[in-house]
Amino acid sequence: MRNLTSLLAALLAITTVPASSDEGMWTFDAFPRDLLRRTHGVEITPQWLDRVRNSTVRLAGCTASFVSANGLILTNQHCAEGCLAQNSTRNKSLLKDGFFASSREKEVRCGTQVADVLVAVEDVTAQVNSATQSMDTSAANEARKKALTQIEQACEQATRAESQGGPLTCEAVDLYNGGQYFLYKYKRYTDVRLVFAPESAIASFGGDPDNFQFPRWWLDVAFMRAYGPDGKPASTPRYLKIDFAGPTVNELVFVSGHPAATNRLLTVSQLQTKRDIDLPQWLLRSSELRGRYIQFSKSGPEAERIVQGPLTNLENGIKFYRKELDALHDEAALQRKSAEEARLRTLVAADPKLASEVGDPWAEIEKTQQVLRTIAVPFGYLEAGAGFNSQLFRYARFIVRGVAERSKPNLQRLREFRDTALAHLEQQLGAAVPVYPELEQITLSLSLDRMREWLGPDHPVVRQILGKDSPDALAKRLIEGSKLADAALRIRLWNGNAQALEDSGDPMLQLVTLIEPESRALRKRYEDQVEAPLQKASKNLARARFAVLGTSVYPDATFTLRLNFGTVQGWVENGAAVQPFTTLQRAFERATGQEPFQIPDSWLKAKARLNPQTQFNLSTNNDILSGNSGSPLIDAKGNIVGIMFDGNIHSISGDFWFDEEKNRAIAVDPTIILEALKKVYAAGPLLKELGSS
Amino acid sequence: MRNLTSLLAALLAITTVPASSDEGMWTFDAFPRDLLRRTHGVEITPQWLDRVRNSTVRLAGCTASFVSANGLILTNQHCAEGCLAQNSTRNKSLLKDGFFASSREKEVRCGTQVADVLVAVEDVTAQVNSATQSMDTSAANEARKKALTQIEQACEQATRAESQGGPLTCEAVDLYNGGQYFLYKYKRYTDVRLVFAPESAIASFGGDPDNFQFPRWWLDVAFMRAYGPDGKPASTPRYLKIDFAGPTVNELVFVSGHPAATNRLLTVSQLQTKRDIDLPQWLLRSSELRGRYIQFSKSGPEAERIVQGPLTNLENGIKFYRKELDALHDEAALQRKSAEEARLRTLVAADPKLASEVGDPWAEIEKTQQVLRTIAVPFGYLEAGAGFNSQLFRYARFIVRGVAERSKPNLQRLREFRDTALAHLEQQLGAAVPVYPELEQITLSLSLDRMREWLGPDHPVVRQILGKDSPDALAKRLIEGSKLADAALRIRLWNGNAQALEDSGDPMLQLVTLIEPESRALRKRYEDQVEAPLQKASKNLARARFAVLGTSVYPDATFTLRLNFGTVQGWVENGAAVQPFTTLQRAFERATGQEPFQIPDSWLKAKARLNPQTQFNLSTNNDILSGNSGSPLIDAKGNIVGIMFDGNIHSISGDFWFDEEKNRAIAVDPTIILEALKKVYAAGPLLKELGSS
Repeated sequence: MRNLTSLLAALLAITTVPASSDEGMWTFDAFPRDLLRRTHGVEITPQWLDRVRNSTVRLAGCTASFVSANGLILTNQHCAEGCLAQNSTRNKSLLKDGFFASSREKEVRCGTQVADVLVAVEDVTAQVNSATQSMDTSAANEARKKALTQIEQACEQATRAESQGGPLTCEAVDLYNGGQYFLYKYKRYTDVRLVFAPESAIASFGGDPDNFQFPRWWLDVAFMRAYGPDGKPASTPRYLKIDFAGPTVNELVFVSGHPAATNRLLTVSQLQTKRDIDLPQWLLRSSELRGRYIQFSKSGPEAERIVQGPLTNLENGIKFYRKELDALHDEAALQRKSAEEARLRTLVAADPKLASEVGDPWAEIEKTQQVLRTIAVPFGYLEAGAGFNSQLFRYARFIVRGVAERSKPNLQRLREFRDTALAHLEQQLGAAVPVYPELEQITLSLSLDRMREWLGPDHPVVRQILGKDSPDALAKRLIEGSKLADAALRIRLWNGNAQALEDSGDPMLQLVTLIEPESRALRKRYEDQVEAPLQKASKNLARARFAVLGTSVYPDATFTLRLNFGTVQGWVENGAAVQPFTTLQRAFERATGQEPFQIPDSWLKAKARLNPQTQFNLSTNNDILSGNSGSPLIDAKGNIVGIMFDGNIHSISGDFWFDEEKNRAIAVDPTIILEALKKVYAAGPLLKELGSS
Repeated sequence: MRNLTSLLAALLAITTVPASSDEGMWTFDAFPRDLLRRTHGVEITPQWLDRVRNSTVRLAGCTASFVSANGLILTNQHCAEGCLAQNSTRNKSLLKDGFFASSREKEVRCGTQVADVLVAVEDVTAQVNSATQSMDTSAANEARKKALTQIEQACEQATRAESQGGPLTCEAVDLYNGGQYFLYKYKRYTDVRLVFAPESAIASFGGDPDNFQFPRWWLDVAFMRAYGPDGKPASTPRYLKIDFAGPTVNELVFVSGHPAATNRLLTVSQLQTKRDIDLPQWLLRSSELRGRYIQFSKSGPEAERIVQGPLTNLENGIKFYRKELDALHDEAALQRKSAEEARLRTLVAADPKLASEVGDPWAEIEKTQQVLRTIAVPFGYLEAGAGFNSQLFRYARFIVRGVAERSKPNLQRLREFRDTALAHLEQQLGAAVPVYPELEQITLSLSLDRMREWLGPDHPVVRQILGKDSPDALAKRLIEGSKLADAALRIRLWNGNAQALEDSGDPMLQLVTLIEPESRALRKRYEDQVEAPLQKASKNLARARFAVLGTSVYPDATFTLRLNFGTVQGWVENGAAVQPFTTLQRAFERATGQEPFQIPDSWLKAKARLNPQTQFNLSTNNDILSGNSGSPLIDAKGNIVGIMFDGNIHSISGDFWFDEEKNRAIAVDPTIILEALKKVYAAGPLLKELGSS
């Protein structure tokens, strides 16, 4: 049996460990320094790793890095979109016009933004596992969540006592879908301000048509600054220096950042659920919303201004998920996945002890997917938000649930309302951000309309909600009647009790309260019948993988810090080589004067002074994903030689597998940043802080 | 070998011949009278079949029947939608308001409509096959098309000589995907006028939410009239009488009509192309268009009026194809298909002579699907219309191609421009129908936008078309500049030559001419690399099926006349019985006063006089599909006992397979027609003509 196992393991190794030597989103504590030495002949020291980790910043959904000793943060313009929109009005769009604070006093607060730096990591797998031992499936799932909450709570209490700079933010992290648990400890900056962002017309030149394409010409760059609790710029002596010369072809480069969430370890039945249920449902709803946004944007310049941000985000999502769907329609790729699965099953079956321990996780996971398919529509519409796409509704549900949950002991709550999460949630709830009723009307009426279509007009909850109203009329009544656009009111309600919510008479709060029993019941059903057995089976699957393959396979991305390496390179498309660098000149050539190919006036005015040969964007074979947006591209010396902002069209399948030949990451070259700051934006103080002039 | 073959044939018979004894869309000449006698104990005579065939009418995309001796036609309101829209203006919508001609003089012409009655059928398989013998694949494909054109041409010439009432319309029909060819001969009425249609609010009460649902309350009924070339009502003595008592539960009922196109004989690889390519692409584009239409409709009552028809059609398509996609995501059903395929393959392999004759058609078909996947995007956008969704563009392409093709001999043309097709095409081209620039702007700018997205802004044709324009600006320029909304001009251009087209300076004609080389090249590539090998393989597959199964399997629907039988019955949904009849009372209960649940004023006023127990809609297990809309539901005596207008949600998978347990057809009960004509619409003359009062 032993021989067979080894033979099969060898066979398996060919396909399941990274196909490319450069593939892999490694945690810092398991970074394969030996592999790097073997494949690239380069030695990375623990000091190098420490410095990079300490300079890498996590933003909401993005990555960034410290680039000066005074808390200056470099990230993408599209990662600052929320901040730009929050500081815009109907009449003035920072997204469109860009922003530059010529002095620190003029830096504007990003109301909902925090910036996190990972300072320590602790393995808590044993603690979590012991808390759930010999329990039935759904009890184990609940106990697991409690254990995670408890571990986080204890961590914050301990660091509050130890630390002088305030407690650390502690987050429990699940790697390998329940195979390992870690406690991640972050230093959090809650005061983040905007320093610089270019006009969207150059930050995303070519807009949606060019998105996920390469060659590209996007100055997708923004600067922010972290401030301490004392209102002074944070002290960040271990920053990364930008090397404005940029990288060279074939240079070894690293990306440090937070890839959002990959699905490379999912089973085939889970991928099929994505292909058949999740992606089509989301894409069809979103395509309709895109149509409504676009038609709305044509009603006038104000409409165009206020819808720009949401539309850009939506189109980005549509392109991404549309290409994911295409990836999952690649039968050959799915068959490779099936074959890998079959091989792993054979290996497990060949080891009776292991087999009896882990059971048949593939079959168990498939069962959960069958259940998921039967509840996907009501769960999606009533609990997961598809039926109530509205910022006011989200505020309302958050307040109603938060008030109910916070009256319980910490360990009894829905996990999103655990004590350690509250400070950040309250910051988001209390931030004064504009809510545009016209956009609310579009998103809410559309989602109510689709809910009625998919649940049916005679569904009890639909009848209860709509009564004799049309979706349009109900949306209007809710949006006109609700006062939740007022941040101060939201915080008052959040700090009040259930009676105060009722007394407010706010129709959006009433709607949430009305559907709360049904939506909570759906959530419970989802947790017990899908999540709990899935947790159990996934954990057994991880165990089987560890037993056969060890941890030579990196864990799926989970928006936690990862490091990967690669080189600056293009690829071959339809037999033709795609070069890894673009230069400024071609951007001017492609400009049509019409959106989205309209070069901003500031650039047209500066054109004569600009060097047309300046390198603009570049491609590498680093293995990254959406949360890596804003990540520093780092050379072996530890200097920044690019800012990641996207991938090519083939990178989208990277959610499921890494296509060594065509998956490419895209970065802004520092040379265009220097050229722009100097000659277009005359951003002297900023350049000086960056050590250039 | 013989035994094995029989054994397998028996095995196969279980799954491939109709699972239900009531399944099947039979041609009239192969109607299974024996089966009917066996399963229902009822004898249908050749005279019965002749009469029903002679009274069944084919409309554009729909079915109808003669219901008086004076050419009166009964069909669905939604089959008269085109006519209603063509006779509407910005300020007055017949769709919304309904229509009733209180005398024959007031009946209005349906400009593009013709009405066809099938009078004879002739098997021409041998002729077609002999024309293509021992040719290579793409030559055979072209020879096949020429043979079909020649056969049709000869038929029209012969009937022109024979007949006194003008020549018959002759159409070559392909059954079993190339397994058989027939020549269908129709008597065609080119003057069709509108007599009656109710308000859309009652014709489709509950709108899109209720579409494809049951229970239902739709008065989806319209009357038209066929006129002869002499301008007098057509003489139709062999009409079907409406039995206003309606049918009873479990009564044996027949549907005569023209199911549009089923895909039940497709191979698994072809179904996968639909699932992965055709359906997602169409659905995503259409969902976005839906969003744009809806947002536009909110800009005012005029906008709402002019977009109603297109929006309703679009939403119907979205629901249908969305559910088709769901059907193709049913892994179990696809596995049954695969198993059937495997069994048929085994049977063919067991017969070496047959095997050597037919080869491996499944593998050959799969190869064509691979090619199709690689050209689907450019072919779809540049040739198949996805990139130029505009009525003016369609006129323009039709004129440009028509002028070019008609300068060639009949047999050398693209088949859609063969002589026998021209009269009807010219009628459509010359009909004065409104073209609304606002809607053109929406559909054209959206499709240009998506073309740029999917072909890429740097695709040579995209650059050629757009130049420095945005899709919006180009659409505007084309629509404002084109004069093709003028029917008389269109006919002049159609009758002119290429030089006259050029001289016109019409920008839409110029656009068509610009892209014509590329789009024709794509079409040629499609025909040679997909259509031709597919034709060959499908024909071999049909041959294999005939060899093993004979013609006990009915051919896929092809919008040709079919007859099927079933009974009035409900079904079981989630363990609860769905009753087969609805009554008027519940419609009033479900009315909310808001679209689409708004009962028209005419009904509210008549409410006190109406019998709330009147049967409204009913369900049967007849095997029908979209082109069956308007079909008469006929009892064993040959009387009309219902008008088919839809299926339940489970009927949509009927495109691919018949779900005996849940697939149900839906009809309007004649009792509600009588009640409405009498008490709501006071349609005395119409009732009198129908033999009631």
